[in-house]
Amino acid sequence: MQLFSRLIVILSAFAMTACVTTSDPLPSWNDGQTKTNIVTFVKQVTDKNSPNFVPAAERIATFDNDGTLWSEQPYYFQLAFVFYQIKNMADKHPEWKTTEPYKSVLANDIKGVMSSGEKGLMQLLAASHANMTASEFAQAVTDWSMTDTHPISGKPYTSMVYQPMLELLTYLRANDFKTFIVSGGGIEFMRAFTEDVYGIPPEQVIGSSLESHFEMRDGVPTIIKDAKLRFNDDKEAKPIGIYRHIGRRPILAAGNSDGDVAMLQYTTINPSKEDTSLRLGLMVHHTDEKHEWAYDRDSKIGKFDKGIEEAAKQGWTMIDMKNDWKVIYPTVK
Amino acid sequence: MQLFSRLIVILSAFAMTACVTTSDPLPSWNDGQTKTNIVTFVKQVTDKNSPNFVPAAERIATFDNDGTLWSEQPYYFQLAFVFYQIKNMADKHPEWKTTEPYKSVLANDIKGVMSSGEKGLMQLLAASHANMTASEFAQAVTDWSMTDTHPISGKPYTSMVYQPMLELLTYLRANDFKTFIVSGGGIEFMRAFTEDVYGIPPEQVIGSSLESHFEMRDGVPTIIKDAKLRFNDDKEAKPIGIYRHIGRRPILAAGNSDGDVAMLQYTTINPSKEDTSLRLGLMVHHTDEKHEWAYDRDSKIGKFDKGIEEAAKQGWTMIDMKNDWKVIYPTVK
Repeated sequence: MQLFSRLIVILSAFAMTACVTTSDPLPSWNDGQTKTNIVTFVKQVTDKNSPNFVPAAERIATFDNDGTLWSEQPYYFQLAFVFYQIKNMADKHPEWKTTEPYKSVLANDIKGVMSSGEKGLMQLLAASHANMTASEFAQAVTDWSMTDTHPISGKPYTSMVYQPMLELLTYLRANDFKTFIVSGGGIEFMRAFTEDVYGIPPEQVIGSSLESHFEMRDGVPTIIKDAKLRFNDDKEAKPIGIYRHIGRRPILAAGNSDGDVAMLQYTTINPSKEDTSLRLGLMVHHTDEKHEWAYDRDSKIGKFDKGIEEAAKQGWTMIDMKNDWKVIYPTVK
Repeated sequence: MQLFSRLIVILSAFAMTACVTTSDPLPSWNDGQTKTNIVTFVKQVTDKNSPNFVPAAERIATFDNDGTLWSEQPYYFQLAFVFYQIKNMADKHPEWKTTEPYKSVLANDIKGVMSSGEKGLMQLLAASHANMTASEFAQAVTDWSMTDTHPISGKPYTSMVYQPMLELLTYLRANDFKTFIVSGGGIEFMRAFTEDVYGIPPEQVIGSSLESHFEMRDGVPTIIKDAKLRFNDDKEAKPIGIYRHIGRRPILAAGNSDGDVAMLQYTTINPSKEDTSLRLGLMVHHTDEKHEWAYDRDSKIGKFDKGIEEAAKQGWTMIDMKNDWKVIYPTVK
């Protein structure tokens, strides 16, 4: 009897597994061409009997972050962190009260900050991101993510991630994909929360970076962030970031703006006619003015202009946020 | 009856698994303090009831390559690849026959090459590694690894990897470690064979690199390697390479020379007295003149001098190749 009851437990476990795998892996996605394209692609590359089968080690999927995995309006969220840092550090810099671009930050004057141009933004980036240890910086980002809130939604920034994309990441990983972020955002900024928020560990995050150096400080091995840009992971630099960090061409890439066009070209255009391997390019199109934002060709943030034509030319799948998604953000826990 | 026979199959499978996991995971290592240190460390960090337990995601192990995973005498193996490339390309460069440092390469004159100094070596590196596509370069390394042989052993270079270290890599991965290479060698050079030889995928290889850029060539997305050094992944740069690529402090690091000291310091020295987390530093000591080479303080390649004192000070485990290992290289398949 005991053997039989044990067997039933085992069989039930099998049945449950079967049940889970046949349920909808993308419940927040409406049925339609977009969802079909994604599911069909994943089924083909994971089916050993398909001519399009891809071994697990080569199932690399790369995702842009701003506007692809979380919102990016009315300004990149990393800029909110810059403001947060500058305000927190202002006590030690009394001169900032009268010096631009710091003065505008302390006065919450976004337009004033923007008018300081690239030079001003680089000064703010250096002041908020450099001349501190790697640990101090990571702690500052964590503190920011736990306390600061979005100026319009009033939510913590890390809760403004896209529920359908979280499901897509989970679905891909359940099918033995390795999911990477390839973003113009700061690599160390993102790493402070990507594991908690997206289930993506730091070693699978690629982004822009400052220089850094190593030294022993009072006998403690220490990494210090330096005030010099090392890599701007945008546009044609994205395939380079992928080459450097992954060393293998992705089979799936997702973006939302002209800054992602090169990454999707690199991913989806096979180098020769003999190479007929299956690839999937996804572009998130911001069409939901009611629940998020609607923008593309004329937006200063996440401009999506020549990418629209290229998507049509290359056969990339457009994700229409308004029509393809049932919800935008996760329900608050 | 069918149910019973199925159950027996399942139970047999369990028994076999148990059998595999209790057999010696490091059969090429002699019993002794070194092996005990390794096995004890792995058991502690994977035991959920141990105060030293480490979640799987944080089980990062980093390995130097030259002299740690494969041999490095009488010169770094990548130099053999440089020679191979220069010779293969010589037809298209008739001027090399009369121009140093190429002339010495074509005459197999190692001393002549060495006397060309750092400048000469950089010229050879540029000629053999740059101004070609990423695919062309990877193919060249693959061709080299399949055809070129070591000047003393007569074996293919990729067969001169250390069998005991292959077992260590497998043992760590079986215990949910992520194994990385962190080497002064070229990142793209190593990536051409690390998956086949070490079971380490390209995204877990960190090394020195040249600059590179992306362009569309006749409609094909192409990465081109440029003749400019970007990163020299040695000494104090190794923790920086780890920070950039992994973004998390390893819990185990293995090296064999002074160039690995900073990596082991970064890995094993906890930043505060409150942090008592368990770490393991390993240093391969080349002591087996009969089966490999014996060298340390006075060697030009893989100099191991101040690292010997630091190993004693920090309590790193010294791997005595002669006494700790039963074999050096894998048996030829």
